[in-house]
Amino acid sequence: MNDHASAIGPVLTVLNLAGIAVFALTGALAATAKKQTLVTVLFFAVVTAVGGGTFRDLLIGAPVFWIQENATLLICLAAGTAVWVAPARWWSERALLWLDAIGLCAYATYGAAKGLDYGIAPIPAIGMGVVTACLGGIIRDVLAGEPSILMRPELYVTAAALSSALMVLLAIAGLPFAIAGLIAALAGFGLRAGAIRNRWSLPAYDR
Amino acid sequence: MNDHASAIGPVLTVLNLAGIAVFALTGALAATAKKQTLVTVLFFAVVTAVGGGTFRDLLIGAPVFWIQENATLLICLAAGTAVWVAPARWWSERALLWLDAIGLCAYATYGAAKGLDYGIAPIPAIGMGVVTACLGGIIRDVLAGEPSILMRPELYVTAAALSSALMVLLAIAGLPFAIAGLIAALAGFGLRAGAIRNRWSLPAYDR
Amino acid sequence: MNDHASAIGPVLTVLNLAGIAVFALTGALAATAKKQTLVTVLFFAVVTAVGGGTFRDLLIGAPVFWIQENATLLICLAAGTAVWVAPARWWSERALLWLDAIGLCAYATYGAAKGLDYGIAPIPAIGMGVVTACLGGIIRDVLAGEPSILMRPELYVTAAALSSALMVLLAIAGLPFAIAGLIAALAGFGLRAGAIRNRWSLPAYDR
Repeated sequence: MNDHASAIGPVLTVLNLAGIAVFALTGALAATAKKQTLVTVLFFAVVTAVGGGTFRDLLIGAPVFWIQENATLLICLAAGTAVWVAPARWWSERALLWLDAIGLCAYATYGAAKGLDYGIAPIPAIGMGVVTACLGGIIRDVLAGEPSILMRPELYVTAAALSSALMVLLAIAGLPFAIAGLIAALAGFGLRAGAIRNRWSLPAYDR
Repeated sequence: MNDHASAIGPVLTVLNLAGIAVFALTGALAATAKKQTLVTVLFFAVVTAVGGGTFRDLLIGAPVFWIQENATLLICLAAGTAVWVAPARWWSERALLWLDAIGLCAYATYGAAKGLDYGIAPIPAIGMGVVTACLGGIIRDVLAGEPSILMRPELYVTAAALSSALMVLLAIAGLPFAIAGLIAALAGFGLRAGAIRNRWSLPAYDR
Repeated sequence: MNDHASAIGPVLTVLNLAGIAVFALTGALAATAKKQTLVTVLFFAVVTAVGGGTFRDLLIGAPVFWIQENATLLICLAAGTAVWVAPARWWSERALLWLDAIGLCAYATYGAAKGLDYGIAPIPAIGMGVVTACLGGIIRDVLAGEPSILMRPELYVTAAALSSALMVLLAIAGLPFAIAGLIAALAGFGLRAGAIRNRWSLPAYDR
């Protein structure tokens, strides 16, 4: 579709697909938790899954990634439908949390890599990872009228920032995108997993 | 302005203008209902009227439709001023509801048609109709601190989705844009009208 | 980076940098007021500082201003860090208000000038000033769960509209961008300063 796909490679493509699927699930689960209708559930699945990446593509001047094909939206609609029809006990709050952690680090790594691939500067490329990873969830929370994950002391945006920064730094250091991407995604996920299991959090401003 | 205007034609252009005018009125009425100032009323008129279409144009890579001309914003400002100066009894909550229904289906149909006209895939084109129709109202509700129409069981997004899907399916089936657009807009409006009059709603998730 | 930089000139460039720095401070201060973590403080600094200008650039089809360089984000991160480490007594609510007033009129003037520079129509160019000036603050308020400045009767959006409209009118009248920009920024700031000191406000809708 464009000449930028080469450096991204299969590892990062898988990270992107993983992010789409799990964020669609978290969006749909946020809507069923609020006892919404199927249409709203599908809407939340789509917005949560593609919100961050859409904004990233607009910022870096890339064609929006889900516009030229049916596949991305169909994945989101399938995830939303799965949440709607499957027994509720399949989806615990805990599952939501861990799916979100996978999506967060996959998307952060992929977003930073795509930013680099489009030739943007390193600090904005790190920002692209954070935007890709966090914006979908922020939009989901604002639309659902929930306090945003942003406002919680838990290590969340920080894990996305770690994956993004590692991706950019390792790529600048000369590592192939695939290896840099694997390390970056796993490191961010490790940090987020620790935060979920051990309630790691950052100190809040207290003056 | 671009070479995409041919397939859209006069029927869809009228649907677009109808959407602009009535959504500007609903935005302004939402602000006067909250006892706001004239400047805020005008701001809400503009944001509600152009919000969805602006996002659609960014997504499909079209030049933003109101940027190269004064007319669109002047229509919005006129609608906002009309709401401000006219006697309050002219505008009932009921009027707001029906104006919104007209704008919803006009915008959904036009948005899907414009997406097709820019060569995007069918499922995203349906999505463009829903975005064009619903986003302005969602932004209006979030800014006003109201619970979004999204979260209500009423058939609303569904009516937009019906207009959008019909526009895309009939156009793919080979109907001229003008006829497909008329059928799509009327079908969506019929569904929304039924929902308003008979309180049709979708079942909510109940597990 | 593009051939549009000529008419903007040093006066407007300074207005843009002033807007970035002071809006980053107000974003960071909004986050520390809510006892947030350093990561959230930095996130708010960035979003508040670049939100309006980012949207302006997307609307007028300009490359997003902070994507090709590290400097803008580093200014935001420095401002956020300064708020985090400096003694709280350095930052009063009053300081926040006045910084915001400077940023508001600087950004409104710069945004309108950049719109003109990209050849958009006069009314949308005025809109670009208002968007550049107000959107960052609106996003900050929505994310923080605060009632938006939009909904207050105080002269705020009006001051941005005054700066934007003067910039466009004086430029159309033939004044050099630098002089038009100075007059426009000072006039808007004068109005906003009067509103802060004397609680000037617009009448609210009361029917």
